[in-house]
Amino acid sequence: MIAHTISLSLGESSYPIYVGQQIFSDLTLLLRHIHGKQVFVVTQEKLVPYIALLQAALASYQCDFFYLPDGEQFKTLAQWQKILETLIQNNHERSTTLIAFGGGVVGDITGFAAACYQRGVNYLQIPTTLIAQVDAAIGGKTAVNHPSGKNRIGAFHQPQCVIVDIDLLKTLPEREYVAGLAEVIKYGLIYDTHFFNWLEENRAALLARNTKALLHAVHTSAHIKSQIVSQDERDQDLRNVLNFGHTFGHALEVLGNYQRWLHGEAVAMGMMLATRLSGDLGLLSRQDVTRIVNCLHAYGFASPSVLPPATDILKAMQHDKKVRDGKINFILLTAIGRAEKIATVTKVQLQAVLESDS
Amino acid sequence: MIAHTISLSLGESSYPIYVGQQIFSDLTLLLRHIHGKQVFVVTQEKLVPYIALLQAALASYQCDFFYLPDGEQFKTLAQWQKILETLIQNNHERSTTLIAFGGGVVGDITGFAAACYQRGVNYLQIPTTLIAQVDAAIGGKTAVNHPSGKNRIGAFHQPQCVIVDIDLLKTLPEREYVAGLAEVIKYGLIYDTHFFNWLEENRAALLARNTKALLHAVHTSAHIKSQIVSQDERDQDLRNVLNFGHTFGHALEVLGNYQRWLHGEAVAMGMMLATRLSGDLGLLSRQDVTRIVNCLHAYGFASPSVLPPATDILKAMQHDKKVRDGKINFILLTAIGRAEKIATVTKVQLQAVLESDS
Repeated sequence: MIAHTISLSLGESSYPIYVGQQIFSDLTLLLRHIHGKQVFVVTQEKLVPYIALLQAALASYQCDFFYLPDGEQFKTLAQWQKILETLIQNNHERSTTLIAFGGGVVGDITGFAAACYQRGVNYLQIPTTLIAQVDAAIGGKTAVNHPSGKNRIGAFHQPQCVIVDIDLLKTLPEREYVAGLAEVIKYGLIYDTHFFNWLEENRAALLARNTKALLHAVHTSAHIKSQIVSQDERDQDLRNVLNFGHTFGHALEVLGNYQRWLHGEAVAMGMMLATRLSGDLGLLSRQDVTRIVNCLHAYGFASPSVLPPATDILKAMQHDKKVRDGKINFILLTAIGRAEKIATVTKVQLQAVLESDS
Repeated sequence: MIAHTISLSLGESSYPIYVGQQIFSDLTLLLRHIHGKQVFVVTQEKLVPYIALLQAALASYQCDFFYLPDGEQFKTLAQWQKILETLIQNNHERSTTLIAFGGGVVGDITGFAAACYQRGVNYLQIPTTLIAQVDAAIGGKTAVNHPSGKNRIGAFHQPQCVIVDIDLLKTLPEREYVAGLAEVIKYGLIYDTHFFNWLEENRAALLARNTKALLHAVHTSAHIKSQIVSQDERDQDLRNVLNFGHTFGHALEVLGNYQRWLHGEAVAMGMMLATRLSGDLGLLSRQDVTRIVNCLHAYGFASPSVLPPATDILKAMQHDKKVRDGKINFILLTAIGRAEKIATVTKVQLQAVLESDS
């Protein structure tokens, strides 16, 4: 049952985001968006229980599968190249359709392969993790990582549609589920006060994966992301606010070799740091700083007291894409529900936040 | 002196193509299109005599150089990755500008690096070969080759401008210069009867690199290409006609391991084959077939009598991007100056053309 259809408006590249339950198994939805005779599914071994369904649905197509190993450390040029080689070996033509069936890593690398195979082919997103459903699968940012930084090589390439089925989240491991909630909380913080209030109040239901609560959280998040992306596809301006917590977060992921923390965990710590920085700079009241940090703790996110040395984090941040002419642009909060890009943050201020104990 | 400024109209991605003499050395033109503080030049050792000029012009920028080895066989993912690694090592930010200073290989690989570095950065094209000035540098098709076929991995990514200085052609080796004329002749054949007549009549002047003749040929070619691209950026329809001679030509390049024939030479043979096929199918008069083949011979292009076996060529053509659902789309001539996409060519007809001795 499709509960909501969000339209991501981008002129010729506009596409629908279907949000609901039992819609992955509604195969007509899938088939409506495949136009050629070939399909190429990028997925993961752990999703095998669901894959038989896909295989049955796609029986009338030439359908090839590529299994990506699990983990951010496989979002590499080497794996991307293997996908391209497999497409070539199986004679996939320009009219083929790629399907990203998995988490954010699968979505990002599949999208980037679709962007570059024969100068661009169609692809669909069927995200299977919370973080991919509310963030990665929406907006056409595709990429692979480089040892020096996340998403340093990639392209903008919009999918034909995104199918968000919250039933797929039932089997998601607890740690991954909670990590995904970091991005959900982010949308409240940067864009929607009421949603943040709702997230504070409905924490228990959401952590218990209550269907109604989950549907509301996923739909609201996907809707906010779509609103922002449709106003700034290429990340020139407004879309920057989506990076709240990510400048610190990316640096932590690099230092943890993409293995120590899940993306959402790193972003949650990054949001705590960015919130404290917002307070230090007088942009956000001390009361709101405390309220936000408490909310993140209540959802189970750790304090950044386990951080690597401040000098290491500062160095890792130098490689971030958000650096322009040597200055780091920071997304900071001016209220709960409102984020802004601040270009005047000094190294001393950064160091103070990284070294504070609170 | 800028003789002509062609505007390639593509909405937000529109850009100018400057055609003239001594405009490479007019540095204000170059600087007008660089917005950040970093520049990254991809070029070739053999262009060193010109590079000092570039270095001087860019003295106030952080300017790094990457030297690509000479030849189509280096238009690979491996070299593309080296370019990306060098950009990362030198801390190039999203605001950097790449400059492709060289032939078609340099332009294609630089454009593809610009398309994927940090999800897309600016780049300029300064083509130094005839074939790049009239074809490769215009239109935003970027790519690298794969052992299975040309340009199988790439993206559409438009440059900020194209600087076409015919003075750079003075030192071009004879074989490369003549090969470039294949694409010039192609424009007459597919789009402009008068231009083809002019090319027949002015062969001696053009082969002698007479300035006036060369300026006319380059400007007319760049203009036709721009007209076609602005109507069909993504090669969905009209732009296909630019592939006249290329389906055969690409297969020959693959079989020759990208080394035996220059691209233009392979295209010239491909155009002879496609012209004869047009005649065989009754689309083009025998008289026009003879006239076209004679013109190509007069410009110095070899008969396809030196071809590999027909079965090898047919097999190599299976991998072409123009294959859709197993059928090869052919661009054929219906008159001198008019090309059409024909989807009904049979394998038997192809074989007949490939095995004929004329």
